[in-house]
Amino acid sequence: MEKHFSFITERLEQLAGGNIPAEEANSLFSNAAITKYAPGEYFVRADEASRKVGFVTDGLFRLFYTDFAGKDYTKNFKSTGQFVGALASLLLKTPSKLNIQALEAGAVITFDYDNILQIAEQGFIWQRLLRKITEAEYLEKEQRESDLLFYDAKERYLKFKEEHPDWDNKIQLRHIASYLGMSPETLSRIRKGL
Amino acid sequence: MEKHFSFITERLEQLAGGNIPAEEANSLFSNAAITKYAPGEYFVRADEASRKVGFVTDGLFRLFYTDFAGKDYTKNFKSTGQFVGALASLLLKTPSKLNIQALEAGAVITFDYDNILQIAEQGFIWQRLLRKITEAEYLEKEQRESDLLFYDAKERYLKFKEEHPDWDNKIQLRHIASYLGMSPETLSRIRKGL
Repeated sequence: MEKHFSFITERLEQLAGGNIPAEEANSLFSNAAITKYAPGEYFVRADEASRKVGFVTDGLFRLFYTDFAGKDYTKNFKSTGQFVGALASLLLKTPSKLNIQALEAGAVITFDYDNILQIAEQGFIWQRLLRKITEAEYLEKEQRESDLLFYDAKERYLKFKEEHPDWDNKIQLRHIASYLGMSPETLSRIRKGL
Repeated sequence: MEKHFSFITERLEQLAGGNIPAEEANSLFSNAAITKYAPGEYFVRADEASRKVGFVTDGLFRLFYTDFAGKDYTKNFKSTGQFVGALASLLLKTPSKLNIQALEAGAVITFDYDNILQIAEQGFIWQRLLRKITEAEYLEKEQRESDLLFYDAKERYLKFKEEHPDWDNKIQLRHIASYLGMSPETLSRIRKGL
């Protein structure tokens, strides 16, 4: 697990735009744990009041809602080098509405969100880091929302392939279709036409 | 304009969860300006690279996208006592995709976002404030997204009325319907059935 710490610190400092004091970083890592996930296993389940934030060291996770009829809606994917968590649930301290499930074997270094908040009270750089992470999550959401209005199905798929060339082969067609707001039939037709 | 400053400071301190140094607050307010809006006037237009953030002292604004076919999609409303701005455009320094238009006569105290960022470099409390504002915007977006899945049209409308009793009478039916993700006909039917 330790081999990932310098990489994570680098990533956090890049996001925060400044140096994180070593002592505070150590305090964060002293509470971290690594967990392996088999395909199909859940990082967070809907209705669970999870306080975990993860850094994906390996693998690919799907974030999705399941409605009352059992139909699921893919909201996002997170893969190696990204942070993963049920942000709204963490912020509101309410049970998660999202499921976060491993699509393939992987590993996540998990942190306790409340421990992060405690450490973040120690300084400017931590607040800027949390601010930047939230801004990135906000932008991702708004981007997806406006893509649905301003791009047609084919354009959305081409954009997805360009931004995530590795995801296109790994993820089931129906999940990509759901994420891109189109039917599996439409996505299948688009792929054949390319 | 000055009569609003203590109210805005109070609101900011409430959001930030701490005191804002008077000197820094004054620096923020020294660059503020108040602008009146007639019904139909724009706070931000799509394709404009606005750097403004506003605090609505009076009135009601609609945030919406217009697609290539000219159809519009209401994303949000902001009224007296709320902050308003094209957040994604501010964060990315790109032209806005959103329009922000006054639905009724009103007034907004505007700040320059880059000036806010400069002041925010001066301390922990400002970073926490920006973090909390972004978190609130994120939650609002995610709430709306999950409401569309977990509540039917009638439930969404009742929730809207409960959360914003004053908006329901003031806003045109078609804008409320668009915001709630239903057709004007559906909303009209729901209202008649109540």
